[in-house]
Amino acid sequence: MSDHDRKPRFSRAPGRGARPGARPSGPRRDRGSSGDDAVILYGWHTVTAALANPRRRIRKLLLTENAARRLADENIATRVTPEIVRPQQIDHRLGPDAVHQGLLAEADPLPAPSIETLPEGGIVLVLDQITDPHNVGAIMRSAAAFAVKAIVTTARHSPEATGVLAKSASGALELVPLVLVQNLARALTALNERGFLTVGLDSEGGENLAHVPLRQPLALVLGAEGKGLRHLTRDTCAVMTRLDMPGDIKSLNVSNAAALSLYICTSRLGLMN
Amino acid sequence: MSDHDRKPRFSRAPGRGARPGARPSGPRRDRGSSGDDAVILYGWHTVTAALANPRRRIRKLLLTENAARRLADENIATRVTPEIVRPQQIDHRLGPDAVHQGLLAEADPLPAPSIETLPEGGIVLVLDQITDPHNVGAIMRSAAAFAVKAIVTTARHSPEATGVLAKSASGALELVPLVLVQNLARALTALNERGFLTVGLDSEGGENLAHVPLRQPLALVLGAEGKGLRHLTRDTCAVMTRLDMPGDIKSLNVSNAAALSLYICTSRLGLMN
Repeated sequence: MSDHDRKPRFSRAPGRGARPGARPSGPRRDRGSSGDDAVILYGWHTVTAALANPRRRIRKLLLTENAARRLADENIATRVTPEIVRPQQIDHRLGPDAVHQGLLAEADPLPAPSIETLPEGGIVLVLDQITDPHNVGAIMRSAAAFAVKAIVTTARHSPEATGVLAKSASGALELVPLVLVQNLARALTALNERGFLTVGLDSEGGENLAHVPLRQPLALVLGAEGKGLRHLTRDTCAVMTRLDMPGDIKSLNVSNAAALSLYICTSRLGLMN
Repeated sequence: MSDHDRKPRFSRAPGRGARPGARPSGPRRDRGSSGDDAVILYGWHTVTAALANPRRRIRKLLLTENAARRLADENIATRVTPEIVRPQQIDHRLGPDAVHQGLLAEADPLPAPSIETLPEGGIVLVLDQITDPHNVGAIMRSAAAFAVKAIVTTARHSPEATGVLAKSASGALELVPLVLVQNLARALTALNERGFLTVGLDSEGGENLAHVPLRQPLALVLGAEGKGLRHLTRDTCAVMTRLDMPGDIKSLNVSNAAALSLYICTSRLGLMN
């Protein structure tokens, strides 16, 4: 799907199944965060990755009997005493669309590093107002697959690292540090000053990403579909690139474009192994 | 998102906002097809691509005033007399999540070609029970971007080519022929007999897709995440491959994997221009 295909779920008004005032037991579909800043994690990959991450503090763990048995079979420690529930209780909590596989955890958010602490090697990914949590989740998953050092994004105009995003990331939330910044152009300037090659990707980019000179450390900058990169973001990138493709459609879904450009950069920088 | 992140919308039971008996004016969120086999198309790219496709018969066109003006400004013929409506009328029809941009068309499905009529060159994509319409739509969009000759999929266990799928495909539905088959293994056998190199992609594939010998015509076979390719599908492919990636997560969202493998095959076969 494109990033503008769905209205962002985290900002959706209540209604359509949500019963106002029914928290904390009422459905809070796809939203994830509790009254405070708790993070909601569900699904096998997402919850087991959190359980395997010593930096993730688990507050509460809801398991179906089947899920509890599967964790035991695979010798995965639950770290907190799980509450054994019926699948419907998790359904009720997440809404009918969430494929939770019998696992739901409430956890603390992970500590967010700053631009200054990023390693001066490899690739970081910079996201400019990509709002769809499915897309951002899929991008985080690809980032983990390509051993990206961090994802930099704005604190505003980005989906929260919980719920649908966490599920779509399929465990990648535990693996790729998320750097939240107030101002993206300022963050890009800091990256430029720290020696990163900042490469923007846009359908109107002047250079072909497959041929433009690249070097480490590299910051690959992606914008939302339709809107693309904002002017100031574009102006702050050292080079603006595009993906060349032979067909009649010239733009990809943003998470597809992210996977492809990560593959191209990783291969060209000799980072595939 | 992964293909198993969302319960398939086209098979969702009514309820949660759907008012039974309210058709045809009640919300039919994400489902798309009317009582008969009409296809529902919405969103700027999707509807304008349909209007530009002489093979697509448009039955009915709903436009907001703004959308009608934008079509006129861009000299796009509507082909049928549009019904001018308020945005809320389209919202009501599609449900609150659909970003329709003021355009909704009811149309005939496109004629589906058969395996026997596929050209003996280039790449075809074969989908084995990928059920999420967002993923299939994004895959169709990438297929159009990489000039894929056709997508082969089973008539059952595939989302219908309407609604969310059409919107996620962003116009690609009009560009990439969809071949619907009853039995995928039989279709792969027919492709083998017609001289296609059938290449399966699976996290457990024996060969690296980036290095395995490739030739045209090529059939690239993808399965749903989690499940992967079915045994019979796997056994019918001439070669089973995987994508090698350097990070801790070894599998991508299925539409991301499709985009990446299309890029690899297109580049390696010299089909990028």
